[in-house]
Amino acid sequence: MKANKASVKDLKNAAARRLFLEKELKVKLAAISQMNFTDADVAGHNIENLIGSTQIPLGIAGPIAINYPLISKLYYLPLATTEGALVASISRGAKAITTTGGAIVTLNTVGITRGPVFKTKNITHSHDTQKLIAKNLPKLQVIAKATSSHIKLTKIDINFVGKNLYCRFYFDTTDAMGMNMATFASQEICEAIEKLTGATLISLAGNYDTDKKPSWLNFINGRGKQVWAEITLTKKIVKEILKTTPEKVVQIVQTKQHLGSLMSGSLGMNAHFANIIAAIFIATGQDPAHVVEGSIGITTAEVETNGNLYFSIYLPSLIIGTVGGGTPLPTQTEALKIIGAKDANELARVIGAAVLAGELSLTASLAQGSLAHAHKTLARKKS
Amino acid sequence: MKANKASVKDLKNAAARRLFLEKELKVKLAAISQMNFTDADVAGHNIENLIGSTQIPLGIAGPIAINYPLISKLYYLPLATTEGALVASISRGAKAITTTGGAIVTLNTVGITRGPVFKTKNITHSHDTQKLIAKNLPKLQVIAKATSSHIKLTKIDINFVGKNLYCRFYFDTTDAMGMNMATFASQEICEAIEKLTGATLISLAGNYDTDKKPSWLNFINGRGKQVWAEITLTKKIVKEILKTTPEKVVQIVQTKQHLGSLMSGSLGMNAHFANIIAAIFIATGQDPAHVVEGSIGITTAEVETNGNLYFSIYLPSLIIGTVGGGTPLPTQTEALKIIGAKDANELARVIGAAVLAGELSLTASLAQGSLAHAHKTLARKKS
Amino acid sequence: MKANKASVKDLKNAAARRLFLEKELKVKLAAISQMNFTDADVAGHNIENLIGSTQIPLGIAGPIAINYPLISKLYYLPLATTEGALVASISRGAKAITTTGGAIVTLNTVGITRGPVFKTKNITHSHDTQKLIAKNLPKLQVIAKATSSHIKLTKIDINFVGKNLYCRFYFDTTDAMGMNMATFASQEICEAIEKLTGATLISLAGNYDTDKKPSWLNFINGRGKQVWAEITLTKKIVKEILKTTPEKVVQIVQTKQHLGSLMSGSLGMNAHFANIIAAIFIATGQDPAHVVEGSIGITTAEVETNGNLYFSIYLPSLIIGTVGGGTPLPTQTEALKIIGAKDANELARVIGAAVLAGELSLTASLAQGSLAHAHKTLARKKS
Amino acid sequence: MKANKASVKDLKNAAARRLFLEKELKVKLAAISQMNFTDADVAGHNIENLIGSTQIPLGIAGPIAINYPLISKLYYLPLATTEGALVASISRGAKAITTTGGAIVTLNTVGITRGPVFKTKNITHSHDTQKLIAKNLPKLQVIAKATSSHIKLTKIDINFVGKNLYCRFYFDTTDAMGMNMATFASQEICEAIEKLTGATLISLAGNYDTDKKPSWLNFINGRGKQVWAEITLTKKIVKEILKTTPEKVVQIVQTKQHLGSLMSGSLGMNAHFANIIAAIFIATGQDPAHVVEGSIGITTAEVETNGNLYFSIYLPSLIIGTVGGGTPLPTQTEALKIIGAKDANELARVIGAAVLAGELSLTASLAQGSLAHAHKTLARKKS
Repeated sequence: MKANKASVKDLKNAAARRLFLEKELKVKLAAISQMNFTDADVAGHNIENLIGSTQIPLGIAGPIAINYPLISKLYYLPLATTEGALVASISRGAKAITTTGGAIVTLNTVGITRGPVFKTKNITHSHDTQKLIAKNLPKLQVIAKATSSHIKLTKIDINFVGKNLYCRFYFDTTDAMGMNMATFASQEICEAIEKLTGATLISLAGNYDTDKKPSWLNFINGRGKQVWAEITLTKKIVKEILKTTPEKVVQIVQTKQHLGSLMSGSLGMNAHFANIIAAIFIATGQDPAHVVEGSIGITTAEVETNGNLYFSIYLPSLIIGTVGGGTPLPTQTEALKIIGAKDANELARVIGAAVLAGELSLTASLAQGSLAHAHKTLARKKS
Repeated sequence: MKANKASVKDLKNAAARRLFLEKELKVKLAAISQMNFTDADVAGHNIENLIGSTQIPLGIAGPIAINYPLISKLYYLPLATTEGALVASISRGAKAITTTGGAIVTLNTVGITRGPVFKTKNITHSHDTQKLIAKNLPKLQVIAKATSSHIKLTKIDINFVGKNLYCRFYFDTTDAMGMNMATFASQEICEAIEKLTGATLISLAGNYDTDKKPSWLNFINGRGKQVWAEITLTKKIVKEILKTTPEKVVQIVQTKQHLGSLMSGSLGMNAHFANIIAAIFIATGQDPAHVVEGSIGITTAEVETNGNLYFSIYLPSLIIGTVGGGTPLPTQTEALKIIGAKDANELARVIGAAVLAGELSLTASLAQGSLAHAHKTLARKKS
Repeated sequence: MKANKASVKDLKNAAARRLFLEKELKVKLAAISQMNFTDADVAGHNIENLIGSTQIPLGIAGPIAINYPLISKLYYLPLATTEGALVASISRGAKAITTTGGAIVTLNTVGITRGPVFKTKNITHSHDTQKLIAKNLPKLQVIAKATSSHIKLTKIDINFVGKNLYCRFYFDTTDAMGMNMATFASQEICEAIEKLTGATLISLAGNYDTDKKPSWLNFINGRGKQVWAEITLTKKIVKEILKTTPEKVVQIVQTKQHLGSLMSGSLGMNAHFANIIAAIFIATGQDPAHVVEGSIGITTAEVETNGNLYFSIYLPSLIIGTVGGGTPLPTQTEALKIIGAKDANELARVIGAAVLAGELSLTASLAQGSLAHAHKTLARKKS
Repeated sequence: MKANKASVKDLKNAAARRLFLEKELKVKLAAISQMNFTDADVAGHNIENLIGSTQIPLGIAGPIAINYPLISKLYYLPLATTEGALVASISRGAKAITTTGGAIVTLNTVGITRGPVFKTKNITHSHDTQKLIAKNLPKLQVIAKATSSHIKLTKIDINFVGKNLYCRFYFDTTDAMGMNMATFASQEICEAIEKLTGATLISLAGNYDTDKKPSWLNFINGRGKQVWAEITLTKKIVKEILKTTPEKVVQIVQTKQHLGSLMSGSLGMNAHFANIIAAIFIATGQDPAHVVEGSIGITTAEVETNGNLYFSIYLPSLIIGTVGGGTPLPTQTEALKIIGAKDANELARVIGAAVLAGELSLTASLAQGSLAHAHKTLARKKS
């Protein structure tokens, strides 16, 4: 078959591959040909068979204020998206939050996880292995450390069923997302566990991570960073900026985000975390497949005794980094500079605040009954 | 606060906004400034507050063959990603599949869904409303049709708890992803339901859709397109191209994709659907937040009596389109031309085949024990 | 080994088996020996190797009023339990409900389900089989009818993954719980499907039923009977009988039953449906393993504009009957007479009202902060 | 309304209450009147408004052998049930296991849990409270200990969303199931936490326990006792006793218990754990509402290289005790004597072995295609 003779893989660079495809498929790849990085910049460590670049519109939302113990800091939010109304909506939420003095954001670092599965001889062996691994954590931490100065094994969860033993290694990888580092370290740790216990590694990733899949394990134990963000808005601000009332916003959260998620068996007890996280992830060079974990999480809202609106979001498994992955690419580097976060924790806080802003604004639109209208006026301007 | 005086929103175009940010933040936005589309092309319907574009490396995998009843057709796969090894891995799977004669792909169109929630007076009213909506489906279909010639209301699921009644409208939107169309039509349908039943619309989207969140409702009833793809490989091909054995691949699928997902409470009973779907979605202008639904699904594998490897994937809720959204953008249009799908169904089949290729290849790497190695050699070339 | 020579199975009746055990184990089985049924009454169709009976304390709660369109009817609730405070708690809820005029209860009969799994040749065969079964529903309904005059096949859900095709047959079995009838009918239907489609039956029960396991499929599509019950209580009744306020009850429902269930990934979005259902099921001869489906379901509560408390419960999969199973046994027959339900629907309504009463009362206790106290005073009287 | 004048509650004993009901409802309660316990034995701590007893047929299965490091011990299994074929099926599994030398059973004691929810001032307060509780575990352990010499607080899990903070207290209650003890201790612990942190207790039970509801939290972290049991059977035993082959049994487990549970979103990845657990729980005086947690769990099976069948079950949250609750009742005490377990751990092992036997036998019936037949011949003997 044709596939067997010619191959883009054998061609030496993006230009040659484009030429091959343009001839082979009778298409023009003029737009794709424009790159502000070279083959050498990305070949291998970011991508193979490079043919050019995909360009996604980049918008700016904000500024949004985050309240730190002593100071309040303003951030602009770079958002790569093609969904009309999203940037405007996040900006509206940011305005309500910032006018009120800024979002409060707090976080726990759970760490990136890798979840290998081992084969044992029987449940007695599984049980002994469970105890033996727990007992040897310090030794395994030394082995992990030896693979990179940037990684630290912090914890191991272990469970088993029959002859199948599942581990969940938790790693602190400072400012890197760290999945690759964690994979290399896990390889060494698993070999040590095999020697130590006589169990046999079946798969370095056994879905007990759980990487790029939505799972209750991620939700309950967390993954990457657990981020919480909140704001309390006066009735007046809710009316003037969000065009609705605290009572209506709370009704939406209880009926849609909570009851609606229970009725549909959803792990995303929110309105649209995924939209905001996808737009920031793409803009800043995060892995867009990690939007899957990012989309799980809960929104809460309350009318306070003084009539104010309390609104909060919780992200149990935010997987991000400020170094490595797609972050060194030209547009991604500039986007990170726009945010100006000094480390992964600050970036996580900004993403938490952005999610708070976007969730608040859409929930208000639903309360106001203007969702269809908003999309009609904005998303359809052109047609 | 500073936020209140200056605003990027008031500036007239991307250039002005960049200039504002460069001054305000003391950054250079040279890379972001490069756009192969104009403000007018995207402003409003795709994005607000445009400042430029984000560039993501685009690689090419394949060709991959899909077997249609009479012909076998070859496709190249455009993949926008920054994860090293992904394009190479999909290409390897594509080679195994194509060498073997091509993937078989089949699908059902469930349709895009919108899931509003209504408030009723009591459970008797909820129950009556459930029956009344069902009885008036034809009337509501006429109302939906009136909102656009491209949309058709095909079905309504209804359930309730207390005074909260949840509907799930299913729409056929031909080659458009159709979420916006569905939202406009749902607005009209909901107003008709209010008149018809006396129930009050609380939220046009009640998480009973479930849009951009992983839910059992999406998994069990499907959303967008349900896509199945399969391939049967000889022992020889598995050994030569995938460097492992059918038995080992089956063991990974049973221990990781199935048991591992049960142990972690995962809705993604697969290895990495999200990686492949994110890369194709971004390249072809799909909504990257829909990767969330795309990441749910199941992989199966069997050793056949003759020793061959049977391998299949199932995507219960693939949300895609070949028109609208980000598809008209220059690089996205070229990427769609590279695939050359004549409609959304053909694009869905190609994505199904791509997921089959990527899932097969990674599962084989895990079986072979080469995951860490693969990332080390590819993803670390640069450092 | 000793096990191989002697066996209780070979002994002719309960008395002989008790004698064997008393000798073999040096125990006295005086209490177990008391039975108000004979070997012949139960041997085979209810149990094998009978040795006697287990006695469980039976208490009475109520009366509880249910409001039917024209009349209000009072019911006493027989409850077999060993959990102190349960009967008292349900009685307290019943008093609040009855004093207020009675519960409103409504239901849908989904029907008992059986979910076989078939093996197909490939996904094309799976897809064709899915369509073929749907097309032949009328023919399969005739086949089902032929197995018993008491059973009717009403619907079939079909889904597949790879070569595995899952069906969900829905049956109307009037006043019988009907699992056995459904199993016999399913056997015939499956043989017809094998002939019709060329698919091979792997298992008559493929967990797509889902019988006696908690599943989202049961929750979303329902099983047996979907039952909803509600009551609206004045502030005064809530204070005098339940010792708390509508606001506090609503806070518990939102924080425990809803948010708490989201936080723990629970399919039981309620306080203790399982307690009430287990007690009535055991008293009336239902299958106690069906408490598993009974424990899934949602409680809702609202403070109405006039300050009243609206409280409701929803049981998506209540599996019950008034004939067959354990219902003909002496104490179970008398318990059913105490309730006085003329058919399975009326029994389902009474169970719905009982669950409403028990859930209301415990939720109020939690709101009042008296849970520990209630158990201490009641459950510890003796010690 | 009639309900307001007369009340069974005011009557002094079971006889008087029966008399009242017989008159009021024109029924005879002769069978219910038979009790081998007195009002005083159960009134208050086990039940209120006693009217008599419910009698359930009690059958005997086994003996079943459990292999301990040095000895193999035989157990008879008392099973209270009205489901024909159940006792016979468990006996068949027990025979296969015992003939082969006995089941291997292992366990972890996770402990009974109580999961209160607190209200905080904001997420900063939630976060501080999370740390403060963790820091004060030793102090809280002393407080727990003071409530009973039989209880020990072993661990606390803490998570929060917005102003809602969820704790999960783990208790070791030795041989008692311990839910009441845990509730009393939790009350004291919660009052201490309120003083310590300024958070306000909303509900002593916040569904973060999760008690008598199926939840992923119970599945992932375990509750009560985690029990694993396994057996390896020769091809010959599988054929002679179970009438099928290892290959067919493994196919059922993979297609029904694993894939079927993934397809239906089930937390019970097994065939019928609930049947066996309900029958033993009722016979031995356990709380039948705890069958809900008992029904979650996983079955695994493998064909070993020598052609033998490996079969295992895992119960993540088995809630049982040998003292307290319904265990002191006459028939329940005798049933516990039949088992002859010296403590809760031994009882847990016997239940694990019983579940292994019942699951093995039903899975074999499904493999053999005899499910419908078995029920027809046994369950229908009478009709």
